[in-house]
Amino acid sequence: MNNILILGAGRSSSALIRYVLDQAKSHNWHVTVADADPQVATKKVNGHPNGLAVWLDVMKVNDRRDLINRADLVISLLPAHLHIDVATDCIQLNKHLITASYVSKDIYKLSDDFRHKELIFMGELGLDPGIDHMSAMKTIDEIKGIGGKLMAFRSNAGGLVAPEYLEKNPWRYKFTWNPRNVVKAGQGTAQYLEDDKFKYIPYNRLFKEYKLVNIPGFDEPFEVYANRESLLYREAYGLGDIPNLYRGTIRYRGFCDAWNALIKIGLTDGSYPIMDSEKLSYHELMEAYLSVDNKPGLSVKDRVGELLGERPFSPVMKKLDWLGLFSKKKITLAKATPALILEELLLKKWQLEQNDRDLIIMQHEFDFELNGKKKRRYSSMLLYGNNADDTAIAQTVGLPLGIFAKLVMTGKITSRGVNIPVSKEAYEPVLKELEDYGIKFNEREEDLN
Amino acid sequence: MNNILILGAGRSSSALIRYVLDQAKSHNWHVTVADADPQVATKKVNGHPNGLAVWLDVMKVNDRRDLINRADLVISLLPAHLHIDVATDCIQLNKHLITASYVSKDIYKLSDDFRHKELIFMGELGLDPGIDHMSAMKTIDEIKGIGGKLMAFRSNAGGLVAPEYLEKNPWRYKFTWNPRNVVKAGQGTAQYLEDDKFKYIPYNRLFKEYKLVNIPGFDEPFEVYANRESLLYREAYGLGDIPNLYRGTIRYRGFCDAWNALIKIGLTDGSYPIMDSEKLSYHELMEAYLSVDNKPGLSVKDRVGELLGERPFSPVMKKLDWLGLFSKKKITLAKATPALILEELLLKKWQLEQNDRDLIIMQHEFDFELNGKKKRRYSSMLLYGNNADDTAIAQTVGLPLGIFAKLVMTGKITSRGVNIPVSKEAYEPVLKELEDYGIKFNEREEDLN
Repeated sequence: MNNILILGAGRSSSALIRYVLDQAKSHNWHVTVADADPQVATKKVNGHPNGLAVWLDVMKVNDRRDLINRADLVISLLPAHLHIDVATDCIQLNKHLITASYVSKDIYKLSDDFRHKELIFMGELGLDPGIDHMSAMKTIDEIKGIGGKLMAFRSNAGGLVAPEYLEKNPWRYKFTWNPRNVVKAGQGTAQYLEDDKFKYIPYNRLFKEYKLVNIPGFDEPFEVYANRESLLYREAYGLGDIPNLYRGTIRYRGFCDAWNALIKIGLTDGSYPIMDSEKLSYHELMEAYLSVDNKPGLSVKDRVGELLGERPFSPVMKKLDWLGLFSKKKITLAKATPALILEELLLKKWQLEQNDRDLIIMQHEFDFELNGKKKRRYSSMLLYGNNADDTAIAQTVGLPLGIFAKLVMTGKITSRGVNIPVSKEAYEPVLKELEDYGIKFNEREEDLN
Repeated sequence: MNNILILGAGRSSSALIRYVLDQAKSHNWHVTVADADPQVATKKVNGHPNGLAVWLDVMKVNDRRDLINRADLVISLLPAHLHIDVATDCIQLNKHLITASYVSKDIYKLSDDFRHKELIFMGELGLDPGIDHMSAMKTIDEIKGIGGKLMAFRSNAGGLVAPEYLEKNPWRYKFTWNPRNVVKAGQGTAQYLEDDKFKYIPYNRLFKEYKLVNIPGFDEPFEVYANRESLLYREAYGLGDIPNLYRGTIRYRGFCDAWNALIKIGLTDGSYPIMDSEKLSYHELMEAYLSVDNKPGLSVKDRVGELLGERPFSPVMKKLDWLGLFSKKKITLAKATPALILEELLLKKWQLEQNDRDLIIMQHEFDFELNGKKKRRYSSMLLYGNNADDTAIAQTVGLPLGIFAKLVMTGKITSRGVNIPVSKEAYEPVLKELEDYGIKFNEREEDLN
């Protein structure tokens, strides 16, 4: 085993490619990096003697299979919906495959095929999903190992910006990952478990009913809103009977109220186009969401304030104003949904600049009973990025993939079939090596009375 | 032409079948009434010498075509999605077809086929859609005919209960038509035109931002919330350049705030199932929508009040309480969505009893300029039902169909192809005869300054 194929050399690939190439010489690996844009791949390989940049249109089946056929392990950073084709190729051609994406139902259906051919498919090897699974399972296994009975698992994570940025814009937020997912966040109904009861928070209340959570090292608490799919990993984590299960997203203080204002106005909806959107200004778009009975004597901004129950210079109104939602500038996008118009505006306002450092926060809470005592353990990870080209998010997505690739190439992974990294064989060596890169979970424990 | 086939003898068919049979003797018609339940059809035909009740499983293509082949005109009261099959049969077998349902895009695609065979397809021949088109077009044509320039068309309608019922339940509402449509009403985004600008109201604000509208004969104003599709008939009504266009739904005072409370809690959502719903009480369901930080010391009812910003005995809280949402009774429905649980509860609470009279209100407003003066004309229709078997809604859905059937059978309709009743040929004779049945629009006009 000495050939690795990396499919996709886009923004999230830097830390992965760097890691794999760094390891290549001592392990005598040949690393092929394939991308639709050959310049991007060439730049990432950067003349490394063990690396080869190639051009690939992944939809060209024969080209794709040729490349896969020459590898022992495929690492796919392609968009998630393309993994099913790559997985089918890997089964036919007898190759291992690992990705950072969510494992779809269709991929799970291939589990027997991978197992029969003694192949590895490991998905969800990034940050979230990925490091969240590994770090949670490490503590869950530890607590179970000492005889503890788990009563609650709460896990919160956020991709944020470093605190030095907070003075620069009132939202205290920038895009460090997929903007569309931020605009669509929470649409649907959040579900979680509390005292053995299922709980539901509809979208219209989700960003109003946030929790405050303290993170070591920060004076101010953070806001946390509930994720849609808290219950998804109950079985995978072996927590089938746990009475409390919650997953949330972390934001700096002040974000949720202002995002809720965008929802209430109607700007996060992607289901219908705004008529003549290319001819409207943002100011006119806001006016389009005001009905006539809503105090027509006032300015559009003041009427939006009335609608939201906000005073003219409230923190929420300042955030809306800062985005330029009351400006006379034209939208220019044609036939755009409100969500797309909002996304395009935010892309300009929330763009990570070259020297901006991002910040990943992940914190788990485990409540458990041990020898008749109730305890709570916190497990927290903070990671700062270096700049816009070397973000914490790219590191935390890429490094687990790279480390796991090494484990596969060196024959350390025995389990076959479709898996996510919840077994000790997977999480223990990955978490251990991640510490060398500053990705480390700190634990503290307290008694609950 | 002397054979009429009526497909469907369900609840909404009584007034239609009665009308057609009443006319059958003098016109020498043979009327076949087909239903999946032969007893229902037999009861509706009631031994009339010109009537024949037959059993039909409409999915059995040959049986259906046999019946259609023996008719000159088919009147379909089947569920809307079945009309495409019936329409295809009618084209093949050279039969006219009329329905009260919305005309779908697929049906419009058959327009050339109907026209080439010189066949009539007339859809939207009920109340709404139906009488709304006809009564609006009558006044629009009148105003245009005297040289008026239309500046606004606003049209509101509601299926309600007679005022004597209002003391009996705090919602002042019962189901007189499709319950599911009531539960789903407004989901999406309402759109209308105001001062030449498109306006949008998202679902989360729709039932908060209702208007008050006066109807002649009632001391108290009614609440009106905006419909989703106000702009749908701009072209069909010849109002392509009108600057104000609005359609709304009429409710008695107090309804909208309380319905908004159900939306805010999350009970109108049909997109996900409530876990273990068959084991929960309504009280437990309400608790499932409360997050832990929402004052856990209070009762569930008081916490819902806090959530809604309502005092314990406010009109909204009384309405929720009256529905039994805080009762310890079990839901019993398994794997049900919140919307389905709500619908089942409302079906019990809002059922029309035998002697209840329903009430249809429809009121159009036309603003126009004539000889430099601005005027507003109101055109209003009120109709009371007699009891649960002879509702105003069944009359207003069935009679336009019946009257139009007579026009077709007596050769009075010259236009061919797929149409809705917006032409004078269609609306004039139907509206005129509807007056004999008490379905009459009263107009009044005022000057606008």
